[in-house]
Amino acid sequence: MVLVIKDCNIVGKKGNWDIKIKDGKIQEIGHCLDGDEYIDGNGKYVSPGFKNTHTHAAMTLFRGYAEDLPLDRWLQEKIWPLESELTEEDVYWGTKLACLEMIKSGTVAFNDMYFYMGSAAKAVEEMGLKATLGYGLIDLGDEDKLEEEKQTTLDFIEEVRDMANVTPSVSPHAVYTVSDEGLQWCAELSKKEGIPLHIHIAETEKEIKEQDGSVVEHLDDLDILYEKTVAAHCVWLDEHEIEILAERDLTVSHCPVSNMKLGVGKPMDYGTMKKKGVRVTLGTDGCASNNNLDMFEEVKIAAIQQKMSGDTTMMPAGDAYGMLIDDPLDTGCYAVNEGMSADLILIEGSVPNHDFVSDIVYSLSGCSVTDTVVEGKVLMKDGYVEGEENILEKASYRASRLISKVF
Amino acid sequence: MVLVIKDCNIVGKKGNWDIKIKDGKIQEIGHCLDGDEYIDGNGKYVSPGFKNTHTHAAMTLFRGYAEDLPLDRWLQEKIWPLESELTEEDVYWGTKLACLEMIKSGTVAFNDMYFYMGSAAKAVEEMGLKATLGYGLIDLGDEDKLEEEKQTTLDFIEEVRDMANVTPSVSPHAVYTVSDEGLQWCAELSKKEGIPLHIHIAETEKEIKEQDGSVVEHLDDLDILYEKTVAAHCVWLDEHEIEILAERDLTVSHCPVSNMKLGVGKPMDYGTMKKKGVRVTLGTDGCASNNNLDMFEEVKIAAIQQKMSGDTTMMPAGDAYGMLIDDPLDTGCYAVNEGMSADLILIEGSVPNHDFVSDIVYSLSGCSVTDTVVEGKVLMKDGYVEGEENILEKASYRASRLISKVF
Repeated sequence: MVLVIKDCNIVGKKGNWDIKIKDGKIQEIGHCLDGDEYIDGNGKYVSPGFKNTHTHAAMTLFRGYAEDLPLDRWLQEKIWPLESELTEEDVYWGTKLACLEMIKSGTVAFNDMYFYMGSAAKAVEEMGLKATLGYGLIDLGDEDKLEEEKQTTLDFIEEVRDMANVTPSVSPHAVYTVSDEGLQWCAELSKKEGIPLHIHIAETEKEIKEQDGSVVEHLDDLDILYEKTVAAHCVWLDEHEIEILAERDLTVSHCPVSNMKLGVGKPMDYGTMKKKGVRVTLGTDGCASNNNLDMFEEVKIAAIQQKMSGDTTMMPAGDAYGMLIDDPLDTGCYAVNEGMSADLILIEGSVPNHDFVSDIVYSLSGCSVTDTVVEGKVLMKDGYVEGEENILEKASYRASRLISKVF
Repeated sequence: MVLVIKDCNIVGKKGNWDIKIKDGKIQEIGHCLDGDEYIDGNGKYVSPGFKNTHTHAAMTLFRGYAEDLPLDRWLQEKIWPLESELTEEDVYWGTKLACLEMIKSGTVAFNDMYFYMGSAAKAVEEMGLKATLGYGLIDLGDEDKLEEEKQTTLDFIEEVRDMANVTPSVSPHAVYTVSDEGLQWCAELSKKEGIPLHIHIAETEKEIKEQDGSVVEHLDDLDILYEKTVAAHCVWLDEHEIEILAERDLTVSHCPVSNMKLGVGKPMDYGTMKKKGVRVTLGTDGCASNNNLDMFEEVKIAAIQQKMSGDTTMMPAGDAYGMLIDDPLDTGCYAVNEGMSADLILIEGSVPNHDFVSDIVYSLSGCSVTDTVVEGKVLMKDGYVEGEENILEKASYRASRLISKVF
């Protein structure tokens, strides 16, 4: 099976091109190329698909359920009661819905932390995009709980070991929900297995105030910060802590929409991160605090949030676009080049058409994406994903059922 | 001609309804209503269309042309040179493109200030939405220039006097670009003609620093602040100045996306405005500083920007939605009620469907709008606006031509 995208524009490359895709990879970029299946790219742009580096996919089911409350009431009265009622079936359909939305808005890979991750993995495999999935390990300092959580983590890694599109991660929730022993065990397991480590760091001021000393220094002492670590949020850090992140070569997942909506107090210090050379990418966080998975929206808000305080040269469009297509999840596609994995999206060109990268960052939205291809497989064609009606119906039912449980 | 929207949900009203529209008004809301023409509202929500209370519509042509520069270089090197080359034909097609985008994303009325406003008015009449249009009067303290500007303003008011969908406004640009004499003349003309006054107030810190004393007090002394005034931005105001705005009963057009992108330095003080009872609405500003006209995006960013500093109860979804449908432009539609002008939009329901107002504010985007009706006339049906291809083509040509002039 050879797929050819015909007559498309490629971001950063002049002229019109055909892209020939074989065995899941970009085989050739040229003219008048033949294939077995075609996508008409006329008037469209091809870009590497976007990577959402921090989310809790199944939380799509909670979207719109609880808004505009103080953070503690939002968690205690709304989110936790719902989560305590969650079933495998809920996570499966919630993740299917999330995958559908991601495919529709140009995301080809995501980094997830949640519960019932076997169900999430099944949803990802069926939908065809790529994901790094981790069971959110929380022990609250309880040794018995830690043993259970370790086992759940190990079982999940075994369960998905042979899956094509799923990479397991070790996902200790945060410094304030996992004991030092738990954190250390996670770091060791991540290194032993050669799989990513996913953690929340310094999302709120409360987190850093409750820590005796620096959160980052503490995590660094536990050897948890290294090149396979994805650290979500990283808002409340000082320059020295940012230097440590840079030295450890980890990836930050910046979540500006969630940070603003949950009132974390200030923008992440992107300026210092850039100066120190930290690898910064973008995440939507879960739909309870966003409330969607549209990376176009995320990147725009990231770029304008950084400019807000007065320096309009901060996070220029090229940098912002780079954060969408960078590949810390190791999908094998961070540019439209021969040999890359064919994880590509087609985007309807804008009018006027002065600068497509600026259009992606500042003016377009997820619904400009017309086609999504992952490893050469067409997941969305002309705006349609096979089976989408069924997913909407089932996810809708699961969400209603879930809420009926807490009333 | 009787139009009936069948089986729709109405925001804030339980059950499924038919909406019967005759002579441009909502005649009846009920069940099993008959008409000559139908829109299928099944699974959709009907809302009053949105009002964009501050924009420069024709600047769609500049979208993506100049980004990420310091404000003075952005204006002097990029925007002003382009504006000096603008023709009537450019403004006509730029405004057509803006109207198309607004219709597609659920905006039924807008408040505009720019040049060649006769061309803008022609575009608005043809497109069928409603607009308050004003010639941006700038005299820079030059008496001869003021006389010319007065004449242009008067000529424009005469030109559009009999147009159905266009209301003229008097639009002095700002306190730093118009003499006191000019501002006073504008205030008098607005009152004499009974037409709105549109002005930029306290957008940047520079504006208030360069003013001897308070900008708002100064404008108040010139009698320019009254119930027909729409004041765009209003970022750099203190509590006393906000009290004056409340007392004068004017309308603020809050433009958070533009404010963030242009780095004005801080969020508008919505909390104090709400406490003092100021009428706050939303504007996108022009596409050079936004870069789109999507009010869904504007309202989400407004709501999360206010929460950012820590109070997540600020600007709750209900208040934010109210800013979208409030009617300072006097279109005659601020609720789906019998007797209101039929300026309505149909929005695809979200999955899950916990709270539609929260979905509008936090999760949906402009492309969820499927149908747009203004004064009972269907401007968009099933996502399609008649003649849209031609508008895209012509606007695209005008934009390219314009830029070729400055190279």
